[in-house]
Amino acid sequence: MAVDHPLDPIFNPRGVAVVGVSTRPGPDGRMGGIFLNALLEQGYHHDHGLYAVNPKMTEVRGVTCYPTVLDCPDPVDHVISQIPSEGLPSLVEQCIEKGVKSLHSFTAGLAETGDPDLVAQERAMVARAREAGMRLIGPNCMGLYVPGVGLGFNPRSPMEPGNVFLLSQSGANAGGIIDGLGRRGLRFSKGVSYGNAADLKSHDFLDYALHDPQTDLVVAYIEGPRDGRAFLDALKRLAREKPTIVLKGGITDDGARAANSHTGSLAGSIEIFDAVCRQAGAMRVRTLEDLLDLAVAMTTDMRYLHGNKVTLVGAGGGFAVLSTDQMAMEGLEVPWLPEATQEQLREIIPIAGTSIRNPVDANFGRDHPMDFGSDTGLTRRVFQSIAAAHSTDLILTTVGTRWYPGQDRSDRARGEQLSLTAEELSIISREHEVPMALILREARLEDAGDFVHDHGVASFPSIERAARAAATILEWKRRREGMPDFFTNNN
Amino acid sequence: MAVDHPLDPIFNPRGVAVVGVSTRPGPDGRMGGIFLNALLEQGYHHDHGLYAVNPKMTEVRGVTCYPTVLDCPDPVDHVISQIPSEGLPSLVEQCIEKGVKSLHSFTAGLAETGDPDLVAQERAMVARAREAGMRLIGPNCMGLYVPGVGLGFNPRSPMEPGNVFLLSQSGANAGGIIDGLGRRGLRFSKGVSYGNAADLKSHDFLDYALHDPQTDLVVAYIEGPRDGRAFLDALKRLAREKPTIVLKGGITDDGARAANSHTGSLAGSIEIFDAVCRQAGAMRVRTLEDLLDLAVAMTTDMRYLHGNKVTLVGAGGGFAVLSTDQMAMEGLEVPWLPEATQEQLREIIPIAGTSIRNPVDANFGRDHPMDFGSDTGLTRRVFQSIAAAHSTDLILTTVGTRWYPGQDRSDRARGEQLSLTAEELSIISREHEVPMALILREARLEDAGDFVHDHGVASFPSIERAARAAATILEWKRRREGMPDFFTNNN
Repeated sequence: MAVDHPLDPIFNPRGVAVVGVSTRPGPDGRMGGIFLNALLEQGYHHDHGLYAVNPKMTEVRGVTCYPTVLDCPDPVDHVISQIPSEGLPSLVEQCIEKGVKSLHSFTAGLAETGDPDLVAQERAMVARAREAGMRLIGPNCMGLYVPGVGLGFNPRSPMEPGNVFLLSQSGANAGGIIDGLGRRGLRFSKGVSYGNAADLKSHDFLDYALHDPQTDLVVAYIEGPRDGRAFLDALKRLAREKPTIVLKGGITDDGARAANSHTGSLAGSIEIFDAVCRQAGAMRVRTLEDLLDLAVAMTTDMRYLHGNKVTLVGAGGGFAVLSTDQMAMEGLEVPWLPEATQEQLREIIPIAGTSIRNPVDANFGRDHPMDFGSDTGLTRRVFQSIAAAHSTDLILTTVGTRWYPGQDRSDRARGEQLSLTAEELSIISREHEVPMALILREARLEDAGDFVHDHGVASFPSIERAARAAATILEWKRRREGMPDFFTNNN
Repeated sequence: MAVDHPLDPIFNPRGVAVVGVSTRPGPDGRMGGIFLNALLEQGYHHDHGLYAVNPKMTEVRGVTCYPTVLDCPDPVDHVISQIPSEGLPSLVEQCIEKGVKSLHSFTAGLAETGDPDLVAQERAMVARAREAGMRLIGPNCMGLYVPGVGLGFNPRSPMEPGNVFLLSQSGANAGGIIDGLGRRGLRFSKGVSYGNAADLKSHDFLDYALHDPQTDLVVAYIEGPRDGRAFLDALKRLAREKPTIVLKGGITDDGARAANSHTGSLAGSIEIFDAVCRQAGAMRVRTLEDLLDLAVAMTTDMRYLHGNKVTLVGAGGGFAVLSTDQMAMEGLEVPWLPEATQEQLREIIPIAGTSIRNPVDANFGRDHPMDFGSDTGLTRRVFQSIAAAHSTDLILTTVGTRWYPGQDRSDRARGEQLSLTAEELSIISREHEVPMALILREARLEDAGDFVHDHGVASFPSIERAARAAATILEWKRRREGMPDFFTNNN
């Protein structure tokens, strides 16, 4: 598991101390605070030493509490600090003396305030740590999430490791991405919320992600790279080898001012940032939702998308019309199916009219509710016929996501139906090498994680968001001409 | 309840017959088909005569089944036809003989196919009905939804009436809008899915909505008005008096082709349609989601929005940065709060830094999780201070929508917390005449109907969608200069 990279010890610490654990009960009635709670829930203490530091207590939630870091048993590789910023200089000295490898400061109120004294304090802290060979994460951030070793800052993050690397300058967005992607079935190799980036910066983490064999996809929320040149170089090297999705915060004047307040970032011109992403072969998205959707697409068979021809299979003509509009607005086409395929569909589908051209209307009346589960045979033949035509690059459908009056509508039954749908679609998808994606009504999107994603089928809460994800992938592939193509086929 | 309008009998029929009820069990194991089932579930039979017509049965689901319409007891004002199109001409004759006032044909496969014989058949049917004074709805549509009298086409539509009139050329989109808005707490005066518009057209229904005292807001999905001049005139008269939201299907070349396949509509240029909406003072939206969001905004205090200055109150700096970007991209501003307000917030909020300017960071640590329920007093003072500054036109917040580890996270507890939040916000909102809106994570949006909407607080699944709704309202109000202002204050 060890990666030959200078940052590797940070992601695999042999002992963690939480300094400044809270003596007051939180909203959950428990003392200790968010980090101690998260480490306990994520299971870090099962394989490693976990210590609390606060001179006012001897024990908190079953964890021994020491007066200072120096009193903790060896080794303590990683320290999480919750103390006020005034105490940081002496904590740095103690950590150096203890041989700590990385210090994560949750504490805000340093350089991002713009106060010259606090800027100077942050700089001095970094200089002292570097001189002694200790690295700093933050300040003003949530720090590390490494499900493989039980490190985390949210008790409810997925505990199984995966292949997505998350880099976020914001703790709230890191939490939002882990939660949002986790519910849709994605899992993470590592996550870092790195705040002010006083010492370790985005390019350091991008370089680690490049060398981390557990990482196949990188998603990043960045407000302002501290070192533009180093960022471009690191992004270029990384995005050449691994798909990389970047969300930039502060792309408007008001937003840039907010970013400056938040992490002291100087956001710079979005035109330049966009050019950097394009040159590096990375994908840039404009909203957090787009980041989630694109990560879903890039961890399913939809990443093999290589053309803009879409076939829509859904219930109702009005849905078909609006969906077609959405596709066209994103530069995608909804061309008629070949005449021979239309002929086949006319034979398969009992009530056929104009609805078999594309979009294909799956609303064939109550005697034939096209749906895996209700009529799997008929439904399978419709999708097989469309996929076998090889006239389409992507099949988007709502089939199998609805329920009929009188059907057992328990969560379990719905989940089973969704799972069956995803499984059937994935078999046809892989046989004919045509990616498939499901449109799930918003409230159902949470089911995607349990029932859809593992079958390699992407899912989106609306046609608009599916279309945007598809268009972003295609544009990214066009721009990467001459660069390695990660996804030439889906075998 | 009766409205002095020629279409009123259609929305208040004294008896309904469903012709062509199904003898085969549907996926729910029951015979009769969707319309009979919906009418029974919506309770039409409690106050009115409900009859089934099929010569092969004498009874279906407790409803007497007659061989023909002519055999049903008087009166039968409205007939819903599920029979194949070949049988329609003789059904029309029977309905005329019976004195039926309106015939709704669900059956597709007429003019929208483009087949000259079928086009001629549809035209002949219309001519014959008109000659005899009977009106036709459709063909190729789901027909009427009138919760006040128990008419409907979906068994699960809300049964309580409301003030939103829905017009939709598509049955699937009608269903999607009723379902989507219903879950978010809106209720309907009347709904019509009118398909091919062979006889009754969009302008007829718009004119009815204008005269219907139960209707305060109109939402319409239209593929192609059959008579452009009459449509513009009707839309102008209506939108002058009542807020009207229009979603146009077929605004791209591919989409227009799909619309032509669907309802035989000739979609026409979107530029012209857009100009028509602008001239009429109607709101045009581009997606079904935008229609839902705007309808939510227009049925809450957000309809009083009259300026583009937004204050954001949310957890986390990264969220603040992205939210500010979203606002700016939609032409909204996130200006700093007045110095005096910042001073007040600095006193109220224990841990203050740069986060009190705007966006206001509601993430003040675990000892003060700003949240109605966790610390109602503090949270109330923060919102009161912001609202009292009168420097903001809209307050958008995520406060009160999150849960903390260890809190009781049952649906009921979540609902109560949401309800408390909406109630507290609405009191402050109305005192200071500043609209408030909540951002609810996607899966929670379904709770809005039960807990948020009735307090006059709008809710949206993302900042992006909230920003779009706000921008559309402002643009609409700018264009309406010189027209009646529906919402000058919120008293």
